[in-house]
Amino acid sequence: MEDALGNLAELARLVRASDFDLVVAVSPENVRYLGDVFISTQVDIRDRLALIVWDGERDPVFILCQVEEGFARQESWISDIRTYKEFVTSPIDLLAGVIGELGAGGGHVGIELDYLPASGFARLERLLPNARFAAAEPVFSRARMLKTPRERDLLADAFRGTERALLETFQAARPGDTERDMCFRLSDLILRYGAESVAFSHINAGPNTGFPHMDPSDYRLRAGDILKADAGGRYRRYFSNVGRTAKLGPLDDEDRSWWSRLREIHHSLVDMVRPGVSGREIFERASVLHREHDIPFPYAHNGHGIGLIVHESPLISPHDPTVLEAGMMVTVETRVRWVGKCGYHMEDLIEVTEAGPVVRSDCFDNEKILVVDD
Amino acid sequence: MEDALGNLAELARLVRASDFDLVVAVSPENVRYLGDVFISTQVDIRDRLALIVWDGERDPVFILCQVEEGFARQESWISDIRTYKEFVTSPIDLLAGVIGELGAGGGHVGIELDYLPASGFARLERLLPNARFAAAEPVFSRARMLKTPRERDLLADAFRGTERALLETFQAARPGDTERDMCFRLSDLILRYGAESVAFSHINAGPNTGFPHMDPSDYRLRAGDILKADAGGRYRRYFSNVGRTAKLGPLDDEDRSWWSRLREIHHSLVDMVRPGVSGREIFERASVLHREHDIPFPYAHNGHGIGLIVHESPLISPHDPTVLEAGMMVTVETRVRWVGKCGYHMEDLIEVTEAGPVVRSDCFDNEKILVVDD
Repeated sequence: MEDALGNLAELARLVRASDFDLVVAVSPENVRYLGDVFISTQVDIRDRLALIVWDGERDPVFILCQVEEGFARQESWISDIRTYKEFVTSPIDLLAGVIGELGAGGGHVGIELDYLPASGFARLERLLPNARFAAAEPVFSRARMLKTPRERDLLADAFRGTERALLETFQAARPGDTERDMCFRLSDLILRYGAESVAFSHINAGPNTGFPHMDPSDYRLRAGDILKADAGGRYRRYFSNVGRTAKLGPLDDEDRSWWSRLREIHHSLVDMVRPGVSGREIFERASVLHREHDIPFPYAHNGHGIGLIVHESPLISPHDPTVLEAGMMVTVETRVRWVGKCGYHMEDLIEVTEAGPVVRSDCFDNEKILVVDD
Repeated sequence: MEDALGNLAELARLVRASDFDLVVAVSPENVRYLGDVFISTQVDIRDRLALIVWDGERDPVFILCQVEEGFARQESWISDIRTYKEFVTSPIDLLAGVIGELGAGGGHVGIELDYLPASGFARLERLLPNARFAAAEPVFSRARMLKTPRERDLLADAFRGTERALLETFQAARPGDTERDMCFRLSDLILRYGAESVAFSHINAGPNTGFPHMDPSDYRLRAGDILKADAGGRYRRYFSNVGRTAKLGPLDDEDRSWWSRLREIHHSLVDMVRPGVSGREIFERASVLHREHDIPFPYAHNGHGIGLIVHESPLISPHDPTVLEAGMMVTVETRVRWVGKCGYHMEDLIEVTEAGPVVRSDCFDNEKILVVDD
């Protein structure tokens, strides 16, 4: 447990301080966090559930498909591993047994109700009719918000790797290339610069930059096209999520005008990423600034915590009251899009420190739109 | 709808023939199938639900986060798109409204209970107290089993691309390379040969081949190591899943003995992939053959349907009674593993035709273990 990447001592404290007798991790991110091991089939073969039960005090219990046991025994700090045989024994039946064994069969159980499928929950409720269940997400989410120094460095390296990949991909772009060509190059480079896999590689040109997340197409780049990317990789299963913009050819006045206004907004918002400020306040300021600069702002958020999932608390959104604390990390994203026409995007990683915001995505300077000469 | 990759006419027929008044697609695979569009944030940002409601007769209704609307309007054949604003309006509230509007508010609704989170289902049940809900999975699964000719060619090309990537990756392996080096090369090549993204790239050497799905490590290859891979990419969101084995140096008698027995089993099982045979029968035969050849067989399946998810019906497993029909495609995988020591693996794509099995993964001949000279 001491060697785990995440803050498991804090998680233990939160579990003990909660109303729950114990909590159950169900999602790939919380199983990864608590078990300090990634069971890849949890994602690839969704029905093959992996679960961890913990009261924050005694040894956790890991419930796993038999086929994953050897790997988990080698990698995880958890030694109490109970396995089920796929299609033969049910992980939910095992879970009900473990909850009972730990004395919570009639108790208060925190479980991830936003991940556990409805069918599995129905079975669990039938097996433990006296237990009371509620969402465990707030407990996990709170622990995961407070990044350890190793998690912060890992995230910074992840963003930098993706930035370098984007910079080189844009610089290599030429008229006649397809979006797919750019995407292959970008994916290659994301891997080369340290990711174990590519999470998303939205890279578009010309009219397609008007969409937020279009898959790359056979569209062929033309001189004068805006190039726009929103890309990320997985680094020991932590995500990067970088937004950058370039132009295939010289900037015109319109590019300069939009970009300088977006940059001004971006700097103002990044500067607010300090302890004591909430994501809600930053969002509200973003709304005002966009209005002042006459830029549409139809978004539900303009930045987010990041870690074992792409969007995690604290969100920069009117709907997340979390107040920032030193040790948190959030992205700030500033963008404008006109569907079918054009879009500009920037997204950076900011660390909250007592001394103020520190931009940790610092490899691909986006102060001006990158100009790619053809 | 006519241009969709999947068999939507068959799906419509199945929905009409079912007990349901309508069905709701919730998972990325069924939304992809029915909408003929992939909403990538469904996977990347899991809470951002996308849903499609269909009675198999009238126009389907697509419920989507606002930010994805423009893309879906361009790509999907579905024109009735209703959007929600993230964190502000709930997709479940929209869904309840649409079900009511289609006259099924007090009716029988098929919905994916193995995907819909427990919290969302609880809300839906509160909003529609008179509706009866049951699992829609069997309807979607049945349609998706019967591949269209375009889906079959797409899958065959997908497997071949991954095979070529594996062949070249093995051939380039040298003593001193790390597993990570092999993984980067493999991922690069999977993209180069047609995938839009790498789904999984388990490639291991020496003692690590004893695990089924270990992430590549810093282990350095040594002369005489077995190299083993289980890898797949996404091709228009359809998966490949290829298993191959090589050796860094000449084979010894033990390699030859294990491999020839595994091949004999593999050929016998592939030959059973014909209309009228069930996955259960193939599995039972596999169990007998492994016993006869004195090879451990602790598995829950030894092959599976494949398409928009990696493991889909028909499974080659004692727990799937599905009888094979022409037009289905399954993998057959034959393997042996000793944890911490060694493992061999082969996995191929077989098309079920009236004329018998057709092996569609035919680019990397694995009749003998590939020998890589150092």
